[in-house]
Amino acid sequence: MECQIGVISGDGIGPEIVTEAKKVLDQIGKKYGHLFHYTDILMGGCSIDATGVPLTDDAIAAAKASDAVLMGSIGGNTSTSPWYQLAPELRPEAGLLKLRKSLNLFANLRPAYLYEELKAACPLRDDIIGTGFDMMIMRELTGGLYFGARKTEEVDGVTTATDTLTYNENEIRRIAKRGFDIAMKRRKKVTSVDKANVLDSSRLWRKIVEEVAKDYPEVTYEHMLVDNCAMQLVKDPKQFDVILTENMFGDILSDEASMVTGSIGMLSSASLNDTKFGLYEPSGGSAPDIAGKGIANPIATILSAAMMLRYTFDLDKEADAIENAVKQVLKEGYRTIDIMPQAGESTEGIEQVGTAKMGDLIAERV
Amino acid sequence: MECQIGVISGDGIGPEIVTEAKKVLDQIGKKYGHLFHYTDILMGGCSIDATGVPLTDDAIAAAKASDAVLMGSIGGNTSTSPWYQLAPELRPEAGLLKLRKSLNLFANLRPAYLYEELKAACPLRDDIIGTGFDMMIMRELTGGLYFGARKTEEVDGVTTATDTLTYNENEIRRIAKRGFDIAMKRRKKVTSVDKANVLDSSRLWRKIVEEVAKDYPEVTYEHMLVDNCAMQLVKDPKQFDVILTENMFGDILSDEASMVTGSIGMLSSASLNDTKFGLYEPSGGSAPDIAGKGIANPIATILSAAMMLRYTFDLDKEADAIENAVKQVLKEGYRTIDIMPQAGESTEGIEQVGTAKMGDLIAERV
Ligand SMILES: CC(C)[C@H](C(=O)O)[C@@H](O)C(=O)O
Ligand SMILES: CC(C)[C@H](C(=O)O)[C@@H](O)C(=O)O
Repeated sequence: MECQIGVISGDGIGPEIVTEAKKVLDQIGKKYGHLFHYTDILMGGCSIDATGVPLTDDAIAAAKASDAVLMGSIGGNTSTSPWYQLAPELRPEAGLLKLRKSLNLFANLRPAYLYEELKAACPLRDDIIGTGFDMMIMRELTGGLYFGARKTEEVDGVTTATDTLTYNENEIRRIAKRGFDIAMKRRKKVTSVDKANVLDSSRLWRKIVEEVAKDYPEVTYEHMLVDNCAMQLVKDPKQFDVILTENMFGDILSDEASMVTGSIGMLSSASLNDTKFGLYEPSGGSAPDIAGKGIANPIATILSAAMMLRYTFDLDKEADAIENAVKQVLKEGYRTIDIMPQAGESTEGIEQVGTAKMGDLIAERV
Repeated sequence: MECQIGVISGDGIGPEIVTEAKKVLDQIGKKYGHLFHYTDILMGGCSIDATGVPLTDDAIAAAKASDAVLMGSIGGNTSTSPWYQLAPELRPEAGLLKLRKSLNLFANLRPAYLYEELKAACPLRDDIIGTGFDMMIMRELTGGLYFGARKTEEVDGVTTATDTLTYNENEIRRIAKRGFDIAMKRRKKVTSVDKANVLDSSRLWRKIVEEVAKDYPEVTYEHMLVDNCAMQLVKDPKQFDVILTENMFGDILSDEASMVTGSIGMLSSASLNDTKFGLYEPSGGSAPDIAGKGIANPIATILSAAMMLRYTFDLDKEADAIENAVKQVLKEGYRTIDIMPQAGESTEGIEQVGTAKMGDLIAERV
């Protein structure tokens, strides 16, 4: 198979971790007879430096011309980087928001998974972890407060700022379907999260989710208020299979869930539209403090590449090979610094490795 | 001192826990020479049953005529209670929202505190708990998405729902001042939480907080994005002193923070306006499943009464007496069922008691 992959290396540790993901993909290509073509696409701070804006029309066109985009990370240190002196629509993140919207990437999948080998990094007690947890957050990504009308204006001499949260039934229906579809491939449970006791948009959300649920009689579903969900993620993460929610709630809850696993450097994500196209990126940020040191964890990006093989190219076997290789290196005791045993924990059989070495180890095992 | 206290017993466990708080207040009255007059006020499900609406104008007037209102909890089981068949504005919670707005209770204080004696209930690992944590969430309570214009309408035959998030500089300034004021009485650190990389309202929030901060040179302050804050509460709750944020973010984060302490049955809250008036209520809900069984934990309500003495009546000594009495009963080993040691934990010197007995024990010790 020939695959056209747009590559957004981005800022901070982005270029380092993307290099390792390409290394693993190329090994997959060799082994399974695929050809991966890469086109570099500028986005974020590096694009601002080169072009003055975080995402040019050419960059959008290049992304559209690709089958999928693999991304590292964008942005910098918000208090010291000059990018954050710019107007909001010129900052690195604005590039990402624009890309999501331009490509209609409405379905954001973020798995939050506890690795048996990394249990010690989980901030929760053993009795809460129990036999572990494995959730998929399905976040709506192109609607709600993020993309509603906004304005800042003087009202009777008083500065007033407004953002708008709008959803229509079609936007809700398509993401709800995605949520139930993925639940069918998992443990068949959907928790739909809203604030229906206060918001009109949440009441519509709930109504449409109920309609969609009728088409999935095998899936158990429930509604949960967002404040309660923020509690339940800490109290008992095991209860969740698929969490289905709107843009802003999904932003907050998916980050909380990823921290609850204790190993955000291991978590991938996919942003999908109605075609096979997808944008794949690690859940973590650009970590400017460790950029260029060769110590960043490339696994989340490598697993994002696996998601790309699975969702865009239907290469399930190849995706499995990557995921198994990751499990294998963990079992063999290799760790980047962020997932090293905590103080007091045994380090027997554990070896700390850098970014490139971790990429090599995984590539060797696919 | 003579104190006029409106009492909203409410639904579920509300009446039981409020009874114990009054018991403790009366004991304080005897000991320190104060007279507490109580006026019952209907709100929530019980008001719907009696009057058809969750809060009557008479009830609002009675609240306004009081120096302070002490509340238990309102609402029921959202899937089985008939209240949840009603239109949203007729449900129990609508009463609470209306009361907040009618009395201009814009400043919601929610302490999230780890009790040394209840460490075992904390869902976090010991190395994360460290020497414990003690935060105060200052949540804006009468603005934002909760009170913005909303509508559900057909747009080209498609049902569309909209909520509006508006803040003006004055609303932000007054809550920010409250946040910095309370930080001055604590560890002098404010974490202001927003989503300024996306929302106009958050950018205004950040700007005004920066202005207010200039008047508090002794207070260290920082801005944190809401998604990051949801992570940090799990990763390292010790870092926080005062968390200052808008209504919806505060709803989510304060519930997360209270769950992180592991003992939501111990956490009080205050909702204040520009006068000495306040509405005081436990952080937990109405727990309909255990209502009437005499096992609910009354401590959060008793501590809410202590907050009332402190904030509305300036009776600091008396508030201290209640807080110390609570610490004392914990030290002596008395526990309601929700804070009993976990499986595997030692129960030596621990005695399980019911709601009324817990009230007695605390009243005896004030
Ligand atoms: C960078 C930012 C705009 C973005 C978001 O909030 O969506 C990020 O936090 C994420 O979750 O992907
Ligand atoms: C009952 C509900 C409207 C309320 C809120 O969301 O404000 C509750 O969750 C709270 O936090 O006090």
